[in-house]
Amino acid sequence: MSNTPPKVIFRNSLTKRHEVLKFNKIILTNISCDIFKGGWEMANINSLGRHVLAELYGCTFEALDDTEKVKSYMIKAAISAGAEVRESVFHKFSPQGVSGVVIISESHLTIHTWPELGYAAVDVFTCGDKINPWDACKHLSEILQAEHVTATEMRRGIMAPCPKTAVSQ
Amino acid sequence: MSNTPPKVIFRNSLTKRHEVLKFNKIILTNISCDIFKGGWEMANINSLGRHVLAELYGCTFEALDDTEKVKSYMIKAAISAGAEVRESVFHKFSPQGVSGVVIISESHLTIHTWPELGYAAVDVFTCGDKINPWDACKHLSEILQAEHVTATEMRRGIMAPCPKTAVSQ
Repeated sequence: MSNTPPKVIFRNSLTKRHEVLKFNKIILTNISCDIFKGGWEMANINSLGRHVLAELYGCTFEALDDTEKVKSYMIKAAISAGAEVRESVFHKFSPQGVSGVVIISESHLTIHTWPELGYAAVDVFTCGDKINPWDACKHLSEILQAEHVTATEMRRGIMAPCPKTAVSQ
Repeated sequence: MSNTPPKVIFRNSLTKRHEVLKFNKIILTNISCDIFKGGWEMANINSLGRHVLAELYGCTFEALDDTEKVKSYMIKAAISAGAEVRESVFHKFSPQGVSGVVIISESHLTIHTWPELGYAAVDVFTCGDKINPWDACKHLSEILQAEHVTATEMRRGIMAPCPKTAVSQ
């Protein structure tokens, strides 16, 4: 077991803060709760939604190429985060790969898989303050047994105007 | 008519460049092609996909609250960019608002609308190098008559490893 802390990079933008989180599987097992709850630090930004874009690397081919399993994982991830599932649609590509979306009352989850590369692109977009998109992201990272995850949170629908001094003239 | 150039902010990140584009309706009419084609400048980054996250402000209530219209706009936007539509699903919320997704062979388009705020969150995620996500984004911005748009491009599935020197120790 490694005690090495995760490499966490914080970057500031004009109106929102991005967080890029890098960790390996061992670190994920040890401290995933803290990592994934880090997103709450941005709660004071006046936006309509939170959007986590996650890159899941090192997943197994089998986990990423079974449409029914991927659909099941996505719906469970939504429910695990406390979301209300409204619609879902999944599509299997030939020779491999799955694309799918779960529309929730709070916005959506999407996934696109490249089984041959062990890679999945996951998005979790939530509006309101009742659920945390990082919870669904954490659930998917674990159930897909990703070896390496990079994730970024974006704020969507920022209603407060950007201060003039922060914009190039 | 205003000749004021758009305020364009470029930011660098470790593995990709974000572009935040701000412009009003008049500027959009004049120079939208140049603005939206700006995304091609990132073409040399070794990634599987390109993801444009766009915030459309100042749209009419009617344009954002009609599920069939929104669905039609989204599918047309996908086709206008040269994408191949595979699946779509849309959901109407009460008392207002629409959420929907179009799964394309190249990944997806999503939309969530807040008609009461004149706001829509649009995502266009494309893989491969045959289509440009900014084309679909431009199409939607125009057809929804957005008065103000902020958009950011993210790269998805970056396969080249991040250099050690670029990661905090």
